[in-house]
Amino acid sequence: MIIALLTDFGTKDPYAGIMKAVISGICPEAKIIDLTHEIEPYEVVSASYVLYSSWNYFPTGTIFLSVIDPGVGSNRRELVAVSQSKSVITPDNGTVSLLYRMNKDLITYRAGKSLLEELKASRPAYSHTFDGRDLFAPLAAIAAESGLSNIVGERVEPVLLTEIESKITEGRVSGRVIHIDRFGNSITSIHIEDIKEKNTYASRASVFIYGRKKGQILKIHRSFSDVKIGEALAYWGSSGFLEIAVRNGNASQLLKLGLRDMVELEL
Amino acid sequence: MIIALLTDFGTKDPYAGIMKAVISGICPEAKIIDLTHEIEPYEVVSASYVLYSSWNYFPTGTIFLSVIDPGVGSNRRELVAVSQSKSVITPDNGTVSLLYRMNKDLITYRAGKSLLEELKASRPAYSHTFDGRDLFAPLAAIAAESGLSNIVGERVEPVLLTEIESKITEGRVSGRVIHIDRFGNSITSIHIEDIKEKNTYASRASVFIYGRKKGQILKIHRSFSDVKIGEALAYWGSSGFLEIAVRNGNASQLLKLGLRDMVELEL
Amino acid sequence: MIIALLTDFGTKDPYAGIMKAVISGICPEAKIIDLTHEIEPYEVVSASYVLYSSWNYFPTGTIFLSVIDPGVGSNRRELVAVSQSKSVITPDNGTVSLLYRMNKDLITYRAGKSLLEELKASRPAYSHTFDGRDLFAPLAAIAAESGLSNIVGERVEPVLLTEIESKITEGRVSGRVIHIDRFGNSITSIHIEDIKEKNTYASRASVFIYGRKKGQILKIHRSFSDVKIGEALAYWGSSGFLEIAVRNGNASQLLKLGLRDMVELEL
Repeated sequence: MIIALLTDFGTKDPYAGIMKAVISGICPEAKIIDLTHEIEPYEVVSASYVLYSSWNYFPTGTIFLSVIDPGVGSNRRELVAVSQSKSVITPDNGTVSLLYRMNKDLITYRAGKSLLEELKASRPAYSHTFDGRDLFAPLAAIAAESGLSNIVGERVEPVLLTEIESKITEGRVSGRVIHIDRFGNSITSIHIEDIKEKNTYASRASVFIYGRKKGQILKIHRSFSDVKIGEALAYWGSSGFLEIAVRNGNASQLLKLGLRDMVELEL
Repeated sequence: MIIALLTDFGTKDPYAGIMKAVISGICPEAKIIDLTHEIEPYEVVSASYVLYSSWNYFPTGTIFLSVIDPGVGSNRRELVAVSQSKSVITPDNGTVSLLYRMNKDLITYRAGKSLLEELKASRPAYSHTFDGRDLFAPLAAIAAESGLSNIVGERVEPVLLTEIESKITEGRVSGRVIHIDRFGNSITSIHIEDIKEKNTYASRASVFIYGRKKGQILKIHRSFSDVKIGEALAYWGSSGFLEIAVRNGNASQLLKLGLRDMVELEL
Repeated sequence: MIIALLTDFGTKDPYAGIMKAVISGICPEAKIIDLTHEIEPYEVVSASYVLYSSWNYFPTGTIFLSVIDPGVGSNRRELVAVSQSKSVITPDNGTVSLLYRMNKDLITYRAGKSLLEELKASRPAYSHTFDGRDLFAPLAAIAAESGLSNIVGERVEPVLLTEIESKITEGRVSGRVIHIDRFGNSITSIHIEDIKEKNTYASRASVFIYGRKKGQILKIHRSFSDVKIGEALAYWGSSGFLEIAVRNGNASQLLKLGLRDMVELEL
């Protein structure tokens, strides 16, 4: 049983390691795979992309455990979402938004009330800031050890973000930057399924960037090697979303693109 | 058998991976969990906190392997410390200090002399800078494979740091910043057990920060969500130590707090 | 069966995690060990060092999977290199250069043509930028699951880099900086086997640095602790290459040393 871990805890602290220890204590056979622990602090929109882009490549039965939790200590809910024999456990803050947009069969539950109360009762009295360790890691480990049915409560509607949507109008698709990767490649919420011209990759289309350096217009190419080194391009990324990059360069810095900046595709 | 790994080797080099390879060669069944490899270079005080804060959450039998080793190549000792059916193998440079303060039953040994000589004899003649690979990883793997008794030598008193202590006087507890986490949260050496008023969380107390931006006074809250975004607070962290944070901000940068800066709690 | 992973994908994105998911789907028993994912983007020379310096410490049978792939989407080849019962799968761009220099028995193949075509046919039609996920991870997993013979095609001569070589002339060895580690230690392509005076460590030799701060001359010491804090030194590193460091400091920054800068050893 694989547990895939996604947090904004970074890697300079033992937070992720402690979660793995808690999981190993409850379910020693769990195989833990890190997605990343370097989501920009509190950036749920970015977590939403990372979760979705990983989802389809994990084996059936995988439990995703996502802890980007700006609301820790408040009364935000603990969510369990299930689709295609995979599941994700996360604070209910929009992390499942992109998954929800792309997988219409996602079913969402609160975590079981009595189990949560039990977990809260057994943590140190002073601990209100590390639900990843005290609540979410045990939930995932119990699900891995004895099944999802032991951790789900009532069905609920999840919190959803609007930033991860795309808007289709005649001849245009607009979206936003939802993740910036290590290379500075800026991934947008515009998906190849949003357009009809799949077979042509919309290679005659224009991409307008409404970032802090307005007026940039790019063409859609097949891959980096289709443009010169240092040149900007748009292309359909490995998860089917429109990405903006500079070959062997950092598009986010060079084009001044940030999370949530608007991008428009004119067909 | 879990081996929990803690170093200042960073993650841009293969040093940690090579240690895992050496461990896997000797004890293929060992399950290795990373605490962190991003301790600030040579900052044993920070390692001491990371080790202690992780200790209680790992299953019985876990072997911690900590290699923050500014003294590599000198004659500093190789230490094996044991408590509560868990153990840690580390250069003898103060890494066990906080564990020693909180767990009075810690027993400390040198690594066995003849085993160390054997390991030194079998490494390349020119290699004097990577004891993590050549000495510490084999020690941990041999302990995991055939028991701690095969690696311990005579009992010794460990090197201890004074920075991780707290000083209790009438109506006051003083301590120092012992770790700064990814979010800039600054963890101090003042522990909730240092005060009598546990049930009230000392919420009427004042916290004085003697950092590079003197004169800051904070109140102790329950969690981030009790203050406004951008506001500073003190709170009892997830390991019971007093932490200083800014909600959705970086306290270390905003309050100019560094490792070893003094903090005082006035009850 | 161990698969050792080496990329320039960084750790802020799920790219490495997705590769692990693909591997786990094909070969669930594979034990994956990260070397690093923080090779400087596209810096094959650095990858070449990381691969070589790790090679000898991994158990027999280990499959290394290296994806530093500036040529993704072009027609660069997929390479499988075999030596000493270990193997590496990588884009054919020079990653095996240092291994090839030090291990004369390295045999190199293209990946099998029909298998590659099969893998290309089964990926999403728009995906041309993530061969790590679509081609290289499956190749490694199939090799781990059913043997190298299932993934190799015809023998080929690998692409080789000249930067990782050393040049021996009478009384001199010249080389280049091939990796800069987390501490700023600058590892050169000059190997202890390049000189005859092994037993003396060439301790009377002079090391000339032709970096951006010319004219630096260093002596070769045994280890950091042989010089004062803040002082620069040269020494034979843990893989036998000449390294330049500053004790408790960052040599790359302080001596202005970058990748490919020239270094000369005068005996």
